[in-house]
Amino acid sequence: MSIKITGVGSYIPNKVEKNSDFQKHEFLYEDGTAFSQSNTVIIEKFKSITGIHERRYIHQELNNSDIAFLAANKAIEDAKINPEEFDYIIVAHNYGDVLHNDLQSDTVPSLATRVKHKLRIKNPKCVAYDILFGCPGWVEAVIQANAFIKSGLAKKCLVIGSETLSRVVDKHDRDSMIYSDGAGATVIEASNEEGGILAHESATYSFEEANFIFFGKSNKLDAADERKYIKMHGRKIYEFALSHVPNAMKSCLEKSGRSIGELKKILIHQANEKMDEAIVKRFYKLYGTTPPEGIMPMSINKLGNSSVATVPTLLDLVLKGKMEGQKLEKGDVVILASVGAGMNINAIVYQF
Amino acid sequence: MSIKITGVGSYIPNKVEKNSDFQKHEFLYEDGTAFSQSNTVIIEKFKSITGIHERRYIHQELNNSDIAFLAANKAIEDAKINPEEFDYIIVAHNYGDVLHNDLQSDTVPSLATRVKHKLRIKNPKCVAYDILFGCPGWVEAVIQANAFIKSGLAKKCLVIGSETLSRVVDKHDRDSMIYSDGAGATVIEASNEEGGILAHESATYSFEEANFIFFGKSNKLDAADERKYIKMHGRKIYEFALSHVPNAMKSCLEKSGRSIGELKKILIHQANEKMDEAIVKRFYKLYGTTPPEGIMPMSINKLGNSSVATVPTLLDLVLKGKMEGQKLEKGDVVILASVGAGMNINAIVYQF
Repeated sequence: MSIKITGVGSYIPNKVEKNSDFQKHEFLYEDGTAFSQSNTVIIEKFKSITGIHERRYIHQELNNSDIAFLAANKAIEDAKINPEEFDYIIVAHNYGDVLHNDLQSDTVPSLATRVKHKLRIKNPKCVAYDILFGCPGWVEAVIQANAFIKSGLAKKCLVIGSETLSRVVDKHDRDSMIYSDGAGATVIEASNEEGGILAHESATYSFEEANFIFFGKSNKLDAADERKYIKMHGRKIYEFALSHVPNAMKSCLEKSGRSIGELKKILIHQANEKMDEAIVKRFYKLYGTTPPEGIMPMSINKLGNSSVATVPTLLDLVLKGKMEGQKLEKGDVVILASVGAGMNINAIVYQF
Repeated sequence: MSIKITGVGSYIPNKVEKNSDFQKHEFLYEDGTAFSQSNTVIIEKFKSITGIHERRYIHQELNNSDIAFLAANKAIEDAKINPEEFDYIIVAHNYGDVLHNDLQSDTVPSLATRVKHKLRIKNPKCVAYDILFGCPGWVEAVIQANAFIKSGLAKKCLVIGSETLSRVVDKHDRDSMIYSDGAGATVIEASNEEGGILAHESATYSFEEANFIFFGKSNKLDAADERKYIKMHGRKIYEFALSHVPNAMKSCLEKSGRSIGELKKILIHQANEKMDEAIVKRFYKLYGTTPPEGIMPMSINKLGNSSVATVPTLLDLVLKGKMEGQKLEKGDVVILASVGAGMNINAIVYQF
């Protein structure tokens, strides 16, 4: 028995927020002081490091669980599966449903319950739950689905990563330009075909790193405003990712028994283009070589960092032939990898 | 191999909120109209149905992840385990960390990361994540730990249920008297002893039931106040639980191969004493008999409904001999069961 991805789908919001839309923002340092550079310089520097030209925001009438459902519908169609057959619906997210112009996270009932409700699934044996694991939540949820199938608990799982970071950004924080909205969904099934999930690896580094990504106040200091937003220590994350992610990927590839030469693609969480390039370069350096051309499909320049949605969305785009010069064929071996709040790292070696 | 609970611990807040403390509240119906009865009558009626005399609230300087950590520490001590040996830390909750006098749920990083950080665990292979599954979250997390151990992913897991409902209650809602704070933790390990988790059962009913428990506005209508609180349709939940929980318990007991006569205790989620009594009565009726005296230890009169924390806290109290007339001995077979937001139901048949 193998465990395979039999359907993928994604929801990419059609509201484009360009870098130029941030020209009017008042960017401040954490201590509330202003930048000495102009916004034009700040935005250009941001673009050259992260690779982000624009990002997507959902429309105000939509919510996180709505786009999770929209992505799920596409994955179900792609897998040609009857949704009543799902044993699990797992939704990875981090902030729940946050309404437009609201500041509360709505997590009861779970987003998985909301998706199941919207899918009009009746079967009560389809267990719906949410996992919170930072940006690597979708990859981790696939690893959990894999464990449920392996242990005999399940045969068919719907695994979704969905996030609306536009609802939790501090517009006075330069990092707000990184964040985006999106949802990616996959159907994971026990299969008689070869390949599938060959190996996986997960880790939580929390001894020093627990608060590298956190919930904090606006950079616009105002004693009366207690509202908190997504915040990160970018430099620390960069150094952390560079020193730990390549080794996690190598350890996972070794477990899979496949060689570095067999690897066709690396689909990695996209928060920062330069960081991802450095990770992949260091990963290949562990094998005494350099990354092949086109090994790492990148959607970040158009889609920004949509947290748990980046990897499944990228997978959907590549599999559906929507990324120029990128394709995947039967038998291809790939790594899916992620890093984010926790700090959590994970990787899956997968053969199509 | 069996999978056993090798340590338990709980944190019961020492701040007692008595029914009389609600005398000064202005209770209103959902439509904002006042009750025709006095608060004395409302509170007495509430007590006679739910069995709740008092509940516990955490002190204002504490947070949900703090009490999760305090309960975890006790379970670790009880299991005499080195925390560096954990493969997983799973925290079940529903509202994250909500600070005193705040309205935002803080879920990044995950509460499991926060607990791991506070426990000063260095081992990065100890994977820390949160599960959202309504009140049955702790039971479901135990089922997940069971699957991870069965599939070879883990040997030792720390599974916590922690909630601070006092931070999300609408004081104008009569149901606010139900909710309480607390945390319960368990160490789950692969073992060579007999018994352990014999069977389990989970379900999500979301077709009609998704919003039986939800996040909604105050009963004190004020167009300017958008704040949302925990809300429920009590009557619908009562009927739902009564028609589904007894069957789920029976199905689980059948899977375990044990007879109704072997069952020593039922440790059930406690939201309403009358409801739990009716569930257990109906469960025994499915076997053509009546519940034995003392089969269902109840802590609700003193502890209220602390969501995910009720079952592990009750387990801790019974195992440590802190419930008058209640004890558990080696070889005893019990059912752990829960029902809550989702609507989710689950059950575990366990032998000590």
